[in-house]
Amino acid sequence: MSVQAREIRLASRPHGWPTEENFAFADVELPSPGAGQVLVRNTFMSVDPYMRGRMNDAKSYVPPFQIGKPLEGGAVGEVLESGVDGVAPGDLVLHGLGWRTHALTSEFTPLKPIEGVSPSHFLGALGMTALTAYVGLLDIAQLKPGDTVFVSGAAGAVGSLAGQIARLKGAKRVIGSAGSAEKVERLTGKLGFDAAFNYRDGDVRTLLAAAAPDGIDVYLDNVGGDHLAAAIDSLNRNGRIAACGSISMYNEKELPPGPNNLHLIVGKRLTIRGYLVVDHGDRLPDMIREVGTWLASGELVAEETVADGLDNAPAAFIGMLRGENTGKMVVRV
Amino acid sequence: MSVQAREIRLASRPHGWPTEENFAFADVELPSPGAGQVLVRNTFMSVDPYMRGRMNDAKSYVPPFQIGKPLEGGAVGEVLESGVDGVAPGDLVLHGLGWRTHALTSEFTPLKPIEGVSPSHFLGALGMTALTAYVGLLDIAQLKPGDTVFVSGAAGAVGSLAGQIARLKGAKRVIGSAGSAEKVERLTGKLGFDAAFNYRDGDVRTLLAAAAPDGIDVYLDNVGGDHLAAAIDSLNRNGRIAACGSISMYNEKELPPGPNNLHLIVGKRLTIRGYLVVDHGDRLPDMIREVGTWLASGELVAEETVADGLDNAPAAFIGMLRGENTGKMVVRV
Repeated sequence: MSVQAREIRLASRPHGWPTEENFAFADVELPSPGAGQVLVRNTFMSVDPYMRGRMNDAKSYVPPFQIGKPLEGGAVGEVLESGVDGVAPGDLVLHGLGWRTHALTSEFTPLKPIEGVSPSHFLGALGMTALTAYVGLLDIAQLKPGDTVFVSGAAGAVGSLAGQIARLKGAKRVIGSAGSAEKVERLTGKLGFDAAFNYRDGDVRTLLAAAAPDGIDVYLDNVGGDHLAAAIDSLNRNGRIAACGSISMYNEKELPPGPNNLHLIVGKRLTIRGYLVVDHGDRLPDMIREVGTWLASGELVAEETVADGLDNAPAAFIGMLRGENTGKMVVRV
Repeated sequence: MSVQAREIRLASRPHGWPTEENFAFADVELPSPGAGQVLVRNTFMSVDPYMRGRMNDAKSYVPPFQIGKPLEGGAVGEVLESGVDGVAPGDLVLHGLGWRTHALTSEFTPLKPIEGVSPSHFLGALGMTALTAYVGLLDIAQLKPGDTVFVSGAAGAVGSLAGQIARLKGAKRVIGSAGSAEKVERLTGKLGFDAAFNYRDGDVRTLLAAAAPDGIDVYLDNVGGDHLAAAIDSLNRNGRIAACGSISMYNEKELPPGPNNLHLIVGKRLTIRGYLVVDHGDRLPDMIREVGTWLASGELVAEETVADGLDNAPAAFIGMLRGENTGKMVVRV
């Protein structure tokens, strides 16, 4: 069996914000899988901030996408045809060939469907997104019960899980920032944050100081910029920052200057530690066990913004960079 | 017995660089020590960068000096009269009441003189200065044999010891920066640095990249600013920064912006950790044992710049802030 597949390629490298012109669609024919391969019909694909970095032709922690070649990213799908013993048509798998309707691959992870939980969550609340929050809080920032925790991008994929995981792990107070009044309301309403603010309402330092009158102990940073400076101001002695991204920088053509209060890390004995979730795959089973339990019991809410159709993937990706999503942004292929 | 003592007071708070007008001299009479006290004739006093911070009326990790009150700081001296059992006239002690000819105090540490080693070293190579380097490299930055280590202010008190301790602890390559050609020559000549550069010669990022073609693994930061940005550029994956000060900022009236490359800490998995030596007194015995051995064997050179006379203490302090010292700056009282 061969299938007609549609894929999205990098047409040109964005300068600053990406536009739809940077993407091109192509139809290809995929053959039957060889030994060790599976042919998968993708059901959901992930759009994530780090993909913006791969669109630049710059040395980074993952190699850049190539112009004229299909984009890549996390996806889940159903096996159509299998060249692997023990994997049968209909099986659910996770793999790295998103941005296309079908994938032919030898690198995949079989998934066990969870009753009542959409398979799309394996791209979010039970996948790398949640692992980013989980490892950042517990391993990198060494969250302790009683800590006050600040999460930026708190209505986003990582942030909305991070705030809830912090609370469920015993944080005394959880504070989030987001980019609209609606998001802020959802943080304190639906997601159980103790306080939240709209960072567009004023100076982030002032807004955070008001939301955290007794300071913060842990900051999960996925935006950098003003938020990082504000966190350094508000951190208490021995505070920890886990840095997993700088979305505020990804579309800047010239790098803005950094925080002018970095010298405070000495007197306050602060630790800033960068990490990438790819180094922490060993924690995936722990995370799935803990978060899976919370998800099943309803203690944790896994929000998703689902865009429909592969054709809408570029718009979904750009929208995610602009913060238009609530929780994890995925595309139903 | 009472003694005529001379002390230096804070006359006014400096704005930017301190000047001699910020200091005032006063003669006072000190009585005999009460029970639990000793009267000490100071022989050496320390001038250190952190004292500049205490001259500001700002909340910091140590309380500010008060206008009209004597300054304080590390000093060693000889007991003149003792109200403490087991402490006799002639004993050598370390205490916190520098900036004066004599001190009456109940808080002091008895010292065991080391044959052939000036007591002034208890303010430097066997004191808090060396402990700052020792703890920063070994505990905060987790130095491992084979690491390439970069030290800023390498001709200064902490830096000159740090470079040597790094080498003696198995660093593969030790790189230092300093502010003059003479200092640079001393680093690679007398102090055994593998490479050194004069940060006034050009862009620090370029200078460091040239001195560290294979990158660096550890950076001991006591200056902040451009040096910090350069280190972030040059650090290899899993690199560590131990930050013990930001001397480049201490005299700035407006805080300059921070490094524009902080986002690199994510992809490179960097850790930046601030610390204060006062939290690490438990490591003093280990440090004195190790550094004392190296000092006695001549494997470690403890440089000092000695200013003569209490009257010259303000000038010595200002000179130290300007980088006029080689190694630890002390004043012979």
